[in-house]
Amino acid sequence: VLVHELPTPALVVDLDRFDANVATMAARWPGTRLRPHVKAFKSTALARRLHDAGHTAFCCATVREVEGMAAAGLGDDLLLANEVVGPAAERLGAVARSGAARVTAAVDSDATVDAAAAAGITEVLIDVDCGLPRCGCDPADAGRLADRARRLGMAVRGVMGYEGHLMRADGATKQDDVAAAGAVVRAALAETGGDVVSGGGTGTWDLNDWATELQAGSYCLMDTEYVDHSPAFATALTLQATVVSSRPAWGVLDAGLKALGMDHGDPTVVGGDCWFVSDEHLTFGWGEAGRLAVGTPVRVVPAHVDPTVAYHERMHVVRGEEVVDQWPVDLRGW
Amino acid sequence: VLVHELPTPALVVDLDRFDANVATMAARWPGTRLRPHVKAFKSTALARRLHDAGHTAFCCATVREVEGMAAAGLGDDLLLANEVVGPAAERLGAVARSGAARVTAAVDSDATVDAAAAAGITEVLIDVDCGLPRCGCDPADAGRLADRARRLGMAVRGVMGYEGHLMRADGATKQDDVAAAGAVVRAALAETGGDVVSGGGTGTWDLNDWATELQAGSYCLMDTEYVDHSPAFATALTLQATVVSSRPAWGVLDAGLKALGMDHGDPTVVGGDCWFVSDEHLTFGWGEAGRLAVGTPVRVVPAHVDPTVAYHERMHVVRGEEVVDQWPVDLRGW
Repeated sequence: VLVHELPTPALVVDLDRFDANVATMAARWPGTRLRPHVKAFKSTALARRLHDAGHTAFCCATVREVEGMAAAGLGDDLLLANEVVGPAAERLGAVARSGAARVTAAVDSDATVDAAAAAGITEVLIDVDCGLPRCGCDPADAGRLADRARRLGMAVRGVMGYEGHLMRADGATKQDDVAAAGAVVRAALAETGGDVVSGGGTGTWDLNDWATELQAGSYCLMDTEYVDHSPAFATALTLQATVVSSRPAWGVLDAGLKALGMDHGDPTVVGGDCWFVSDEHLTFGWGEAGRLAVGTPVRVVPAHVDPTVAYHERMHVVRGEEVVDQWPVDLRGW
Repeated sequence: VLVHELPTPALVVDLDRFDANVATMAARWPGTRLRPHVKAFKSTALARRLHDAGHTAFCCATVREVEGMAAAGLGDDLLLANEVVGPAAERLGAVARSGAARVTAAVDSDATVDAAAAAGITEVLIDVDCGLPRCGCDPADAGRLADRARRLGMAVRGVMGYEGHLMRADGATKQDDVAAAGAVVRAALAETGGDVVSGGGTGTWDLNDWATELQAGSYCLMDTEYVDHSPAFATALTLQATVVSSRPAWGVLDAGLKALGMDHGDPTVVGGDCWFVSDEHLTFGWGEAGRLAVGTPVRVVPAHVDPTVAYHERMHVVRGEEVVDQWPVDLRGW
């Protein structure tokens, strides 16, 4: 099958670009120095390729990702980089107790420490706020939470600190800001004990010098938003669509809001100018090639990879024009 | 099961509000005067409830919606309100030829007329541009396309014209603008023949007096965007999430970009103030109730219903606090 023969809309991964992104990252963060973030691609088939490249420890954002990675035999070392309580904590504990995976949970409060212990989770990272107003405890609270976790019988592997507020920063102070976040996280580690400092991402991959393991996921597929900030990686993921309506001034593609994560704005139409996106349509102005006929395939580059992939059942893997593989997006949902 | 016991994130439909929305619409557009748009909810279980309320003809946006509605026995009269060519047209034709549903396709070009005929589709509507730069032919071309369709052996049921550019308009000229769009569509009908004028939506349900059938879908679930423009309907769909992190100034929910369509902007946090949404998190400022504990359920009202529902496997149906049903979102994908 050739790529232009795929039914559309279809997510397409350029395997050569993907492999180049993986190699670029592995040169700086080899083996388990990288903890690829499964949330970006939600596919055990893609994860297996990273595993084969030596990255055997993974980050997950949902319990379903943990369950699916464990079931696929990719459970060497799974970190749920997210706080859970209630039924989600119980499901996470069930994976840990089953022995199908090594499971580590992020905790940032008494409630999440207690929920992890009650669920039978045996290893935690203390999640520390280093500047992004999201999960993560007050750094001054890290030592106390680590003590609480140990009292409840859990091992504290170290700390997690995600400098997410700096991923898309570009200013002259970015290097210093990343270092300042790291100082907060490293100081917390001195209070918690352990030897893991898990943090960073695609946007700070070349500046973060304080994480013992980098939590990057977007780098392998990339999107138009990240490529502006991390040009060492190439956009390997595109959405192939078909022109279904053609007028003198504009064309319409059969791909819309249900095929594209829109929080980072409009996608980029290759060879055209995106006007607006509707539920199942994308209206665009013609590019230099002029008006295209109904039936013409057109590629679109998503603005944000993670919520784009989460709409799709599969990614089609191509080398040049040939479809060589299919990666099911098998870790969607919660 | 009570609603606050559901694993989160969970889509929740308030059945009383849903039924009230359905009744409000049916009073103005009863029976087949309404052609509910399946794209808004992508669920045969929900569609069956509308069918039971007398709305036996449906609009679909994708071939998979047509296939799923036909397989569920809801194929009395299915309009694919969208242009298709290639494999999609062939699949649509297969449904028509199977006899499992009455299938009508929208066409707006020689290529889509020819694709419909080649696929064995026997009924079409001529899709006419009435102001939204998307699908729809130049109105001057409608008669010619209808003749072409008839020459190829298809019946022309009439026209379709979607005044989508006016759905979220509010100005003093909205009534006149809707009427002007209708004049274009009605004039095209005089050229095409047939007796169907399919158009309109939730945003013009009370102003459109020219459609023989209204294509509304959002009205039954609603969202914060539409409720501003069509206050006769109430928001019946919410996303239930759980506080997983709690700090003095903010809380974090376990629901994010993969649970919420974001093209219309941030959702509304009930009793809080949405700061920003991440892949699997929503950070919000505390409301009047003050700081909430980790584990507290919180409701979020989506800004755009269609791309929100498309992320979920099911909707939980509640009456008051009790979960009384579950509607699988079984028509996702393409």
